[in-house]
Amino acid sequence: MIDSSIIEAENAARRADLAEDYDALGARLARRGIEIEALTARAVAFGVAVPSWGTGTGGTRFARFPGIGEPAGIFDKLDDCGVIHALTRATPRVSLHIPWDRADPALLREKAEEAGLGFDAMNSNSFQDQPGQARSYKFGSLSHTDAATRAQAVEHNLDCIEIGRAIGSRALTVWIGDGSNFPGQTSLSRQFDRYLDSMKAIYAGLPPDWRLFSEHKIYEPAFYSTVVQDWGTSLMTAQELGPKAQCLVDLGHHAPNVNIEMIVARLIRAGKLGGFHFNDSKYGDDDLDSGTIEPFRLFLVFNELVELEDSPGLDLAHMIDQSHNVTDPIESLIVSACEIQRAFVQASLVDRTALEAYRQSNDALMAAATLRAAFRTDVEPILQMARLRQGGAIDPVACFRASGWRATVAERRPKAAGGGGGIV
Amino acid sequence: MIDSSIIEAENAARRADLAEDYDALGARLARRGIEIEALTARAVAFGVAVPSWGTGTGGTRFARFPGIGEPAGIFDKLDDCGVIHALTRATPRVSLHIPWDRADPALLREKAEEAGLGFDAMNSNSFQDQPGQARSYKFGSLSHTDAATRAQAVEHNLDCIEIGRAIGSRALTVWIGDGSNFPGQTSLSRQFDRYLDSMKAIYAGLPPDWRLFSEHKIYEPAFYSTVVQDWGTSLMTAQELGPKAQCLVDLGHHAPNVNIEMIVARLIRAGKLGGFHFNDSKYGDDDLDSGTIEPFRLFLVFNELVELEDSPGLDLAHMIDQSHNVTDPIESLIVSACEIQRAFVQASLVDRTALEAYRQSNDALMAAATLRAAFRTDVEPILQMARLRQGGAIDPVACFRASGWRATVAERRPKAAGGGGGIV
Amino acid sequence: MIDSSIIEAENAARRADLAEDYDALGARLARRGIEIEALTARAVAFGVAVPSWGTGTGGTRFARFPGIGEPAGIFDKLDDCGVIHALTRATPRVSLHIPWDRADPALLREKAEEAGLGFDAMNSNSFQDQPGQARSYKFGSLSHTDAATRAQAVEHNLDCIEIGRAIGSRALTVWIGDGSNFPGQTSLSRQFDRYLDSMKAIYAGLPPDWRLFSEHKIYEPAFYSTVVQDWGTSLMTAQELGPKAQCLVDLGHHAPNVNIEMIVARLIRAGKLGGFHFNDSKYGDDDLDSGTIEPFRLFLVFNELVELEDSPGLDLAHMIDQSHNVTDPIESLIVSACEIQRAFVQASLVDRTALEAYRQSNDALMAAATLRAAFRTDVEPILQMARLRQGGAIDPVACFRASGWRATVAERRPKAAGGGGGIV
Amino acid sequence: MIDSSIIEAENAARRADLAEDYDALGARLARRGIEIEALTARAVAFGVAVPSWGTGTGGTRFARFPGIGEPAGIFDKLDDCGVIHALTRATPRVSLHIPWDRADPALLREKAEEAGLGFDAMNSNSFQDQPGQARSYKFGSLSHTDAATRAQAVEHNLDCIEIGRAIGSRALTVWIGDGSNFPGQTSLSRQFDRYLDSMKAIYAGLPPDWRLFSEHKIYEPAFYSTVVQDWGTSLMTAQELGPKAQCLVDLGHHAPNVNIEMIVARLIRAGKLGGFHFNDSKYGDDDLDSGTIEPFRLFLVFNELVELEDSPGLDLAHMIDQSHNVTDPIESLIVSACEIQRAFVQASLVDRTALEAYRQSNDALMAAATLRAAFRTDVEPILQMARLRQGGAIDPVACFRASGWRATVAERRPKAAGGGGGIV
Repeated sequence: MIDSSIIEAENAARRADLAEDYDALGARLARRGIEIEALTARAVAFGVAVPSWGTGTGGTRFARFPGIGEPAGIFDKLDDCGVIHALTRATPRVSLHIPWDRADPALLREKAEEAGLGFDAMNSNSFQDQPGQARSYKFGSLSHTDAATRAQAVEHNLDCIEIGRAIGSRALTVWIGDGSNFPGQTSLSRQFDRYLDSMKAIYAGLPPDWRLFSEHKIYEPAFYSTVVQDWGTSLMTAQELGPKAQCLVDLGHHAPNVNIEMIVARLIRAGKLGGFHFNDSKYGDDDLDSGTIEPFRLFLVFNELVELEDSPGLDLAHMIDQSHNVTDPIESLIVSACEIQRAFVQASLVDRTALEAYRQSNDALMAAATLRAAFRTDVEPILQMARLRQGGAIDPVACFRASGWRATVAERRPKAAGGGGGIV
Repeated sequence: MIDSSIIEAENAARRADLAEDYDALGARLARRGIEIEALTARAVAFGVAVPSWGTGTGGTRFARFPGIGEPAGIFDKLDDCGVIHALTRATPRVSLHIPWDRADPALLREKAEEAGLGFDAMNSNSFQDQPGQARSYKFGSLSHTDAATRAQAVEHNLDCIEIGRAIGSRALTVWIGDGSNFPGQTSLSRQFDRYLDSMKAIYAGLPPDWRLFSEHKIYEPAFYSTVVQDWGTSLMTAQELGPKAQCLVDLGHHAPNVNIEMIVARLIRAGKLGGFHFNDSKYGDDDLDSGTIEPFRLFLVFNELVELEDSPGLDLAHMIDQSHNVTDPIESLIVSACEIQRAFVQASLVDRTALEAYRQSNDALMAAATLRAAFRTDVEPILQMARLRQGGAIDPVACFRASGWRATVAERRPKAAGGGGGIV
Repeated sequence: MIDSSIIEAENAARRADLAEDYDALGARLARRGIEIEALTARAVAFGVAVPSWGTGTGGTRFARFPGIGEPAGIFDKLDDCGVIHALTRATPRVSLHIPWDRADPALLREKAEEAGLGFDAMNSNSFQDQPGQARSYKFGSLSHTDAATRAQAVEHNLDCIEIGRAIGSRALTVWIGDGSNFPGQTSLSRQFDRYLDSMKAIYAGLPPDWRLFSEHKIYEPAFYSTVVQDWGTSLMTAQELGPKAQCLVDLGHHAPNVNIEMIVARLIRAGKLGGFHFNDSKYGDDDLDSGTIEPFRLFLVFNELVELEDSPGLDLAHMIDQSHNVTDPIESLIVSACEIQRAFVQASLVDRTALEAYRQSNDALMAAATLRAAFRTDVEPILQMARLRQGGAIDPVACFRASGWRATVAERRPKAAGGGGGIV
Repeated sequence: MIDSSIIEAENAARRADLAEDYDALGARLARRGIEIEALTARAVAFGVAVPSWGTGTGGTRFARFPGIGEPAGIFDKLDDCGVIHALTRATPRVSLHIPWDRADPALLREKAEEAGLGFDAMNSNSFQDQPGQARSYKFGSLSHTDAATRAQAVEHNLDCIEIGRAIGSRALTVWIGDGSNFPGQTSLSRQFDRYLDSMKAIYAGLPPDWRLFSEHKIYEPAFYSTVVQDWGTSLMTAQELGPKAQCLVDLGHHAPNVNIEMIVARLIRAGKLGGFHFNDSKYGDDDLDSGTIEPFRLFLVFNELVELEDSPGLDLAHMIDQSHNVTDPIESLIVSACEIQRAFVQASLVDRTALEAYRQSNDALMAAATLRAAFRTDVEPILQMARLRQGGAIDPVACFRASGWRATVAERRPKAAGGGGGIV
């Protein structure tokens, strides 16, 4: 792990500036009637899970270009996640993906404890064939026309639950690539029926205190239709399964131009919002770093979450889900966690009393200005202070670089192979 | 009305060719195991409603360019609808829009009977202010923050039901422009709550044998958020209201790239598909003539409808909803009705036994080819024969032109004013 | 006009806070090596033109809901523009639209001088028919199949130039709605040829020191094809016409997901970027207030402009082009001008030396972080100080409201009619 | 190769039906003034190139699921291409991709001759790293910030030209994945400058009778910006390089909703259309089989090509570029070639005299109807007859299946590995 002396040394060089910035911001916020310490407390309380697979360099169907010191397995990945949390203090949990992260549960728990981490939702994989797998998912998994293939995929999900129980997870996220590439290839209605039947079998295997997250996506890897193509189908799924089933919203899984914050509001009203996969996108499921393409959109999502945070039963699983193709994955996860936290804090300082008054009087201009005033407030000092107070780094990327972590692990981790993606 | 002698004369010139084409097609279909007469019978049974307002030249926010002989009121419009049905025999019902079509119900029924027409779903209007209206819909109607404005809009919808009862309609379609133009302008969640409350009040006023159709639209006239923005929200609405509430799908009201036929399949499964507003589009809610931009998409929608036509309780209200900006509206409605009917007949000749076998064996290529084989079959002779046998025109546009209808009515109808749209 | 004593009184209440905020920001920027006064000087020098028509409430094809005190003609509009500039000191020029703003040029100049305004680019209108117009633009104008209609539209543009010369304008912006609503309706290639021929005739009539701006738009009011559908066609047009022809980029006229800042960079490289129509949008040409939907996108556009501001011959015409449907148009124009200026100032404080170093070393993460650091800097004190020093208002919207302008003019201006848009 | 006796036997069973269908269609066309033999002659003359890599099963970043009998190298691929051409007689050329298809040119020519094939445009690859490659393309190739990396990519392209010369190719297609994943990561303007410099170096190495095709793509594998993002940038590139440089249009490389047929018309007018990569798509660069998603769009592209086919210097390189993930690649290429040919023949039977008359009189309805009449004509008998007369198969997919080709080659070709795509 990164030695705490490095963090301390890096912080020492930044403490004075932070104190000045924090005080200046506090004074300015006070003038607006906002108590900075309340915001800092919210920042401290905020956490978002990191996906184990996000610690490796991602790729496209065209190619993958790994860097040095790539994690070779789940234990390396947990090390990397530990670094991220040590520096940001905002990523206390890790989400595993089976079979990629399959390992002895006892060792997983031990390693996580060492790294100061817990385990978030489990992720199953029925969009790839594994060596030795009896039946192929080429034409689908949970919704396959063949009952034995569906059973195999159900069994795999139940297995993920078992692993999750053993390591202290409390949720299973199901995302499948099932769909079709041609009009006519599949019966859109019966394929969904089969999917629901399989999901019911998985749901039946859920422990009492678990939740099942249904994740929709408009397209990819299927390019004409996808079984759970949007939040409407995801909602129908969660409704049919029962109270432990909820919908998970990935920010990059929507049609162009869709208003995602409306979906958030609708799912909360339906009592079916379970959590998020955070990332950013410009075109499709680009899986770019959170907050780097449309930061105001991320803010608007959190604006709904804060406005509705007292909704009965709301208990959200926040996770990052990104593909880091041209950056050091640890750095991207650090920055992304901070950007997500930033949006949360910005949304927390919206003057909601004023906003409601403007809304009631249909003063659209001032209502919008009220949101923008929160968004453009530079809350960086709050985020920095929240990290500092918890033992994290004021500037976590600079600190990570100063630590030499990547070069160090590169010496002991095997060099990863790059090469073509799906197209070759 | 158009004199039947004109239709007969026009048909006489085309009968021989039709007979030859019909026989050739029949022979070719027979070779594929399809009985042409069964298809013709389905074509005969098919009907789609015409919107009264579609008989006038439409416009954009930039301008409207009316033609000659524009209908001056609902009775002119019913005349035009009568012409369309006389020629196509495929548009037996008219859908009214209140207040544009407000008139003595007895006179409406009488006029419709003369024209051989019935009445389809009623359409309310709370997206425009009417002269003398007490409260403005500038900031919303059924979801307005002001209770009195909401009550006014509810009352208007109840009034539409009353008119509808008096003329034999059995359904009310509610589409509202409510939404917002700025992030923050409205509470996305409470606005929806208010909308649902208003809809419940309308639902409570529904006669026992009526249905209430909820119509979604992604945007326009509101440009940041719209209360009923997609089928998910429309489904939530219909679920909350009760069994008489269903969803209406307008083909142009979706986000780019959305797979509409999947929505059709999902809503049928949910028991909530009520009907369609047919049109075509390339960019947004372009309201172009049905089947002129993406005819295969229209076919795929009907492919779902035919595949699932035996679903319990399925009873669809088909309506055209278009804006005819550069054509004679009667001609556009004629052509559109024929294109919709064409898609239905093409979907009816899909070899569903073969299709299912290909699907079961995941023969994606042949499954897709099976659909395409139906789509590329030129069923024009079937449509022509269906019209001929019912007293319609083999070539309804040619017949309409030969009749001189437009020039004739232009003599007695006042010249319509054109000019700017919403922007001036 | 708004009495300067009102501005002074309003500013007096805000001066102390501004001084404190400005100093704090100055100190923080100084720590980053940035001189705040240099930024304030840039803010002072920045200006964006206001469209005369933007001072009236806009509408959609569905409806228009005017407010009180709407401007009744160009002289009222110039009054409103004067108010906007007096408060913001950022909108020194007005762009006229002919025939809407046709008036005695001498009176126009006199009025503008009174209001402290100059005239920006002229805008012609061949997308609407005017009373008494010989030939209709229903089927096109500059690209119409009929030579006489094209000649009429050319003549109108030459007339706009004449008016512009008389009032001191130096550019003509040509945007046409020509296109088609049906595949096949027009020859895509010959329609463009006709357009180019007409544009050449207009270009031939340009005074030596004038520029001709070609504005593209993907769709609307034509819904299948538009003659100048994208920047590629706009570039071909400008190339064919000659050095005085340049391309104008409206931020809302692109296909979904398009990277607009790339288009900016490309047109600058081609020596053909002439200017902008600023607005914001979520779905189509929504014409929403600048910076209210995707503020980061606006920043990225200005990031290109600042990065390339020393490009030879670059001389940009900045204009707002929005439709204010639910706000007071004066307020929306005030806020929009400030948001555009904000993006310019934010882009001006990007650390370009650091950015270039990160780019050279392919440090994508830090390069992106460098841009975001500039974007999230709250430059509001700089904008406020720039206004204050020029005699404008620290908080122009509050000041406008305090002035009672709208209520005052509502007493003498006639009440505007609302009602339906293009669809009725 | 497939034994001609198999083709003959399969054709024998279909000859009578074809004769009947061909005669019936001929009679119907004759009534419309169209000579069927002229269309059949055009179908016979039509050809589209096949990409060598299309003969293998494609994949996504999530997974690849190969089938049995996958081609193991370029010689297997040429065998497969030979089968496709033998059956369709519509795919006389193969397009190679270097380094995937690198082999002794003499052997390549020999093998191609055996298979009755020629070579189309060469394709270079600087979007993947190859084993032993000196410099990585992780951060770009032709536009990389590092001169040595750019030189390496230029050299690779020149090498492709050398190979192409040796096997009789006459064109090089350059598509690069260069771009960025973050705003700020790269200078949009300088990156393009570097790209142009590299392209000039490649252009300088073109033999006199060669062409250089520039291919644009809106996104993927770069997800924020791509150097050659649209046809505008591609046009600028071709203009800057010179007369031997032209633009290549891939049907799936555009923003949502874009009117591709307009781009075709514009590039022809600019003298810069070089050819196509055919495929179909619903969401992004889905690389689905041509004509299976939006067949009318494919028709409209060919409608432009036929309308403008006498444009001076027009010499188009037609190629299929698809990813066959769930079908037998040979079957998909067969069907796609036939669908492309179908669109060409349908476009060839548009009544252009009538169309022009409707356009001149702005009869939008009949102009559109004229196109649709051509599109809905089932030209299958013409395609079948064109194949039959050239020794191909009336039903090439059925014939391919009857031949047992796939099972036969599966015995001698090694089993391909599947597994994850770019994400693992």
